[in-house]
Amino acid sequence: MSAAPVSRRSRPSKAPLSRDVIVRTGLQVLDRDGLDALTMRRVAEELDTGPASLYVYVTNRDDLMAAMLDEALGQVELPEEGDWQERLRALAGATIGAMSRHEGLAVVALAGVPTGLNALLILERMLALLKEGGLDDATASWAVDLLYLHISAAGAGQNVYDTADADEADHLAEADRRYAALPADRYPVITSLRTELLSGGDRAGWGMQVLINGILNTPVAHRACGRATAG
Amino acid sequence: MSAAPVSRRSRPSKAPLSRDVIVRTGLQVLDRDGLDALTMRRVAEELDTGPASLYVYVTNRDDLMAAMLDEALGQVELPEEGDWQERLRALAGATIGAMSRHEGLAVVALAGVPTGLNALLILERMLALLKEGGLDDATASWAVDLLYLHISAAGAGQNVYDTADADEADHLAEADRRYAALPADRYPVITSLRTELLSGGDRAGWGMQVLINGILNTPVAHRACGRATAG
Repeated sequence: MSAAPVSRRSRPSKAPLSRDVIVRTGLQVLDRDGLDALTMRRVAEELDTGPASLYVYVTNRDDLMAAMLDEALGQVELPEEGDWQERLRALAGATIGAMSRHEGLAVVALAGVPTGLNALLILERMLALLKEGGLDDATASWAVDLLYLHISAAGAGQNVYDTADADEADHLAEADRRYAALPADRYPVITSLRTELLSGGDRAGWGMQVLINGILNTPVAHRACGRATAG
Repeated sequence: MSAAPVSRRSRPSKAPLSRDVIVRTGLQVLDRDGLDALTMRRVAEELDTGPASLYVYVTNRDDLMAAMLDEALGQVELPEEGDWQERLRALAGATIGAMSRHEGLAVVALAGVPTGLNALLILERMLALLKEGGLDDATASWAVDLLYLHISAAGAGQNVYDTADADEADHLAEADRRYAALPADRYPVITSLRTELLSGGDRAGWGMQVLINGILNTPVAHRACGRATAG
């Protein structure tokens, strides 16, 4: 209140505030400074305004992060080539990649039913691919939820078995030491399978194939209830 | 420094500090006050000491939460009845329950290779069940990782489709409104399957059966590399 008024001419002009501008700024703060630094105050500072101005467009930090997740999912390209299983695997991989590119966003995806427009576009395409694969409506509907859960989890735990990543290589070496130190009488199978348990390879691709094969072999019929109509 | 010394006799005697005491106190703080309240400072206050004393036993908040997760997993009972698939489903369900009982702990499980002694006891039992089911070593080894990822994700997103839970019922009603408002030309499959997409039922049980059926139908052979030996 006591400071002398500052002419707007002496500062660079501000971009007008909008939900989009706030969301993109949130992603910049997250990618540059990390999840702990992502606060409404910090995003407001970045936009040269106060937190109160942000709340006109964004309900709270959770709402901001949900919007940031959907913005990130807008970068996912919908695959056009290959049979339905190849396109489904490519779509899942691209979605895992988009989520894991920004710290903490995959965990947001785990928290509830997807409602963002870009998330729903990915679900729409997955459903179409599952229908193309001959699945009934009830099974396709539950399958897309299971796939999205798996994709979010994979995005959150991305690269755990990637020995090319220095941090992950350290984690694996530490896990290997711990497994080796376990009492064999209490942990006999882990002790005998230690090498296989920590092995590298295309675990993500295998996991998606497990889900696809499982979905094809597990019709939902009679398991749904409430508002569902089993296919 | 300027306060008068307080006789120990005027206060209740403190329990001696240990990693176990700190971990159990962390769980109490988490369950009573929530994840945001779980700080090293708050746990120290609860134990009538300063944060510096805690760091003798616990590296940091991440280390504390990992230890809290493993303490929670110590509550999981290992099923003794039924065939291997029934015991595997029961074990998965009990693990999801133990994780989801404490806010934020399932997300910790997503972050890396399990190394806690109680988590490893669950993995040991899962591996034994998968071997009992006739799986080769390489497939059982990758399967247990996929199952643990799924269990952690289910623990983090527990009850999303549970309309008996008031919060979740609100979320589902909100999702239903959003799905109903989508442009049908851009989201045709979601529009036509809206009821099935949000239906209740035994989704968790179905998801586990999908994974089991998928694992049985998707041998790892030739996908592993590095230190792995395909079974």
